[in-house]
Amino acid sequence: MEIATLGEFGLIRRLTENLELRNASSLKGTGDDAAVLDYKEKKVLVTTDLLMEGIHFDLTYVPLKHLGYKSAIVNFSDIYAMNGQPKQITVSLGLSKRFSVEDTEDFYEGLELACRIYGVDIVGGDTSSSLTGLCISITCIGEADADKIVYRNGAKEHDLVCVSGDLGAAYMGLQLLEREKNVFAGEKDFNPDFAGKEYLLERQLKPEARKDIILLLSENQILPTAMIDISDGLSSELLHICEQSNVGCAVYEERIPIDYQTASMAEQFNMNLTTVALNGGDDYELLFTVPLHLHEKVEQIDGIKVIGHICNTTQGANLIARDGTQIPLQAQGWEAF
Amino acid sequence: MEIATLGEFGLIRRLTENLELRNASSLKGTGDDAAVLDYKEKKVLVTTDLLMEGIHFDLTYVPLKHLGYKSAIVNFSDIYAMNGQPKQITVSLGLSKRFSVEDTEDFYEGLELACRIYGVDIVGGDTSSSLTGLCISITCIGEADADKIVYRNGAKEHDLVCVSGDLGAAYMGLQLLEREKNVFAGEKDFNPDFAGKEYLLERQLKPEARKDIILLLSENQILPTAMIDISDGLSSELLHICEQSNVGCAVYEERIPIDYQTASMAEQFNMNLTTVALNGGDDYELLFTVPLHLHEKVEQIDGIKVIGHICNTTQGANLIARDGTQIPLQAQGWEAF
Repeated sequence: MEIATLGEFGLIRRLTENLELRNASSLKGTGDDAAVLDYKEKKVLVTTDLLMEGIHFDLTYVPLKHLGYKSAIVNFSDIYAMNGQPKQITVSLGLSKRFSVEDTEDFYEGLELACRIYGVDIVGGDTSSSLTGLCISITCIGEADADKIVYRNGAKEHDLVCVSGDLGAAYMGLQLLEREKNVFAGEKDFNPDFAGKEYLLERQLKPEARKDIILLLSENQILPTAMIDISDGLSSELLHICEQSNVGCAVYEERIPIDYQTASMAEQFNMNLTTVALNGGDDYELLFTVPLHLHEKVEQIDGIKVIGHICNTTQGANLIARDGTQIPLQAQGWEAF
Repeated sequence: MEIATLGEFGLIRRLTENLELRNASSLKGTGDDAAVLDYKEKKVLVTTDLLMEGIHFDLTYVPLKHLGYKSAIVNFSDIYAMNGQPKQITVSLGLSKRFSVEDTEDFYEGLELACRIYGVDIVGGDTSSSLTGLCISITCIGEADADKIVYRNGAKEHDLVCVSGDLGAAYMGLQLLEREKNVFAGEKDFNPDFAGKEYLLERQLKPEARKDIILLLSENQILPTAMIDISDGLSSELLHICEQSNVGCAVYEERIPIDYQTASMAEQFNMNLTTVALNGGDDYELLFTVPLHLHEKVEQIDGIKVIGHICNTTQGANLIARDGTQIPLQAQGWEAF
């Protein structure tokens, strides 16, 4: 069905009529000039992401449902990176003529699935036509206790540098999808064999945000001194923490967590695995620092790895290679321009 | 300067380094994964608008500084329409290659001017490249006392229907700009004579949000029963109030406030003036209902006009023409698809 058949208000009604509000802080969702939220004594966190077709995603191989899921996840991840809990999102879509009502429903299906799993309410948004392509703008609002918020600027000398999950898989998933797209160029509904590479595809197409890690840290009474999520690549995010905390860091090549599918794919593509792990974006893992005395406590948590330590700013931000040489970290990750 | 010269982080730094935070509720603005706000006992209002080049604005005649100003205003207007006060915005920009760093600075200049005048902080955002055109997504967060929030659904039979300012001017401004654009098609820097039509242009290019009306209502201890801002045209907004409040309404053609420049321009264009006032969008005036006993109180406020009353839903939503005939209101205003 063409979107013009329903019109803007008809489309909004169709997409939002079955939305339920789960959170006590969501007093009023869609349907008025603004949503109404009640955060009581909690602090309010706000983050926003803009995703543009042809820049951030390629609909040749990204299903709209997955795109909806991922669009929500990337915003949740930013709230977790403040040690908060995402509670609401607003969703704006710019849609060119080639998108149907069913397309927007597919997108919303993924969006709602992510919201259901992570306990988030869709409370507002805007829809508009667009001259070309799909434009997605999501704003996420979350809550945190004042004394639990973790910024990028709190890392101290001797703190441990920790990372959740593993790195580089989403980037290798993207390389794989791009290769298959070129191989099957011109063929409709291309259906390549991705056996043995499922993890890479999942990390690229349907990533998760690390709500579990935030919970584990809280259960273990670990409050990071600084935290950021890895969306642009480990190097880039480490440099953000170092710059804002006015410190340096040393991270060890051998300690960077990498899945075997990532390693095997990098070899196939003849790519340097460490470069992939340092600069491949889209990981949505958490990078954080904790005081040195928490070493044992943090090491024993499943899914968290200590990869280095914070040092004095004069020592710079370096990768310590397997042979012991120091290589200054450079932000070579995702760049939107 | 090309944006790629600065890169995403360089551009963000350039645009945000001098932003100051004015509001006590803005604890932390740009520079981390999320902004941190403190709303204490106040309720949190959230609204978002997506503006797409070629759909919502035409850069042939809209200066970027004005566009920045207007982009902020349309969001503030939604918060005022809840009887709240806008406090923060996040700003996402999708920029195609033809935009320079200076262009984004012009846009931000208008944005910051609006924020300064209305007491709002820029606390976050996102920038990205775009394959074609400019895409603007702004989310506004505001505050309200729980017992002062005005929804669209509270209008009661016998309530008075009130409107601020005058209607249709922004639409006639748009017609004028479009005509001149066609007349001067192909000429660079076209500079037509707009003498005597300044008000129409101002309403289209640099509208204001009615913070003053919200203040006047509060000073006069008038709490509207329902309220909405007029962005898509009076008819469309009246129908929203009627539908959500489950009521009908009668508004009088002769009482609809229209500026003389609007009237004279409509005549020149051979357009029906009432249609222009009912369906021309982009007015950003407030449409609200108040209990009947407040008639004298509300009538004496400068800039507010009583244009009709709320009736039973079975009577429908009608315009009472000058000759007494009833014409059912239809939503023929702005439609994004």
